[in-house]
Amino acid sequence: MTGRFISLEGGEGAGKSTQAARLAAALAARGIDALVTREPGGSEGAEAIRALLMQGSVTRWSPHSEALLFAAARADHVEKRIRPAIGAGTWVICDRFIDSSRAYQGVAGGIDDAAVLALHAFGSRGLLPDRTFVLEVPADQGRARAEVRDGAAADRFAARGDAFHADVAAAFRRFAAQEPERVRLIDASGTPDAVTAALLFELSDLLP
Amino acid sequence: MTGRFISLEGGEGAGKSTQAARLAAALAARGIDALVTREPGGSEGAEAIRALLMQGSVTRWSPHSEALLFAAARADHVEKRIRPAIGAGTWVICDRFIDSSRAYQGVAGGIDDAAVLALHAFGSRGLLPDRTFVLEVPADQGRARAEVRDGAAADRFAARGDAFHADVAAAFRRFAAQEPERVRLIDASGTPDAVTAALLFELSDLLP
Repeated sequence: MTGRFISLEGGEGAGKSTQAARLAAALAARGIDALVTREPGGSEGAEAIRALLMQGSVTRWSPHSEALLFAAARADHVEKRIRPAIGAGTWVICDRFIDSSRAYQGVAGGIDDAAVLALHAFGSRGLLPDRTFVLEVPADQGRARAEVRDGAAADRFAARGDAFHADVAAAFRRFAAQEPERVRLIDASGTPDAVTAALLFELSDLLP
Repeated sequence: MTGRFISLEGGEGAGKSTQAARLAAALAARGIDALVTREPGGSEGAEAIRALLMQGSVTRWSPHSEALLFAAARADHVEKRIRPAIGAGTWVICDRFIDSSRAYQGVAGGIDDAAVLALHAFGSRGLLPDRTFVLEVPADQGRARAEVRDGAAADRFAARGDAFHADVAAAFRRFAAQEPERVRLIDASGTPDAVTAALLFELSDLLP
């Protein structure tokens, strides 16, 4: 039996990495093996590309170069880790996936959604998660959490302004409206326990 | 007046970098400023991507990841160096460009030519050289030159087998047949002087 593929999306400080680990633990308690991974990165080659993407000035890469680099990293990650794990029956929980490219390079970066999806079709044969959770927190709560976590080390994306992050949040909500079966909005402003419970509830149709 | 854009293509050891420098000197003698550059690389971001592409094992990247990385590097190079130079009236002489991607990732790597060109349209708005020279030498002569130059340091591409390099050579000849106005085959087995003279002859319609 093949494993399920879950992605967690949302802005900075929404709690994606925390919830990825908590969700894996909850699945393990139900006897389901889960691999927790993240993008950009997640495989040796993709982590090398991640370093190029996350460091340097905000304007280091044009939106088009950036979209190609993300697609290259994702292609490597999908080929080397995600597809082998799913094929072996392991569930995969990925902190960011294609919807982050659609939101950040697409909506907020000015690249057509169709072009972002065409790169994904080329690099990763268009692999989509079985379910995508968009963790939503009020902008000031997310920013405060990210600042506590990253201090002065904000990366090229966290360093963007409020209008950029508002565009990203609006994009994720639109994806949920367009694909309600795959993409679910999750109120992530509560306690970690409450958020994990909400994720499990929204996964109940996929659990064995 | 905008500058002209010339690319040099061919297999390993065909003399591309030597002829790029000689052609720039010949143009300078005619009062034409020329920028000599190369791919992958040629700009700060693209050189960082080059390091990922040229190092490691032959199978480090899948053909699709590799094609996306080349397209990302080219997009940066075109945006940061080639278009600004041409716009300022400088000629650009580039050691490898899109036709190398079509030959190496396309024909020899098994990716559709249309897909390689679609990535180029996305990343670099499809910029094509005004003229492309394919420097042809017998396979054993090219290999001998590349070995003298690189010693044991053959990169991921030079390290491929004879069948791969024969596919690449055949691809370049086909491009010349398909686009005879842009792509010209040059016998590069003679002396450096003779080859430079052949390049200048094939540029005579573009020279002021």
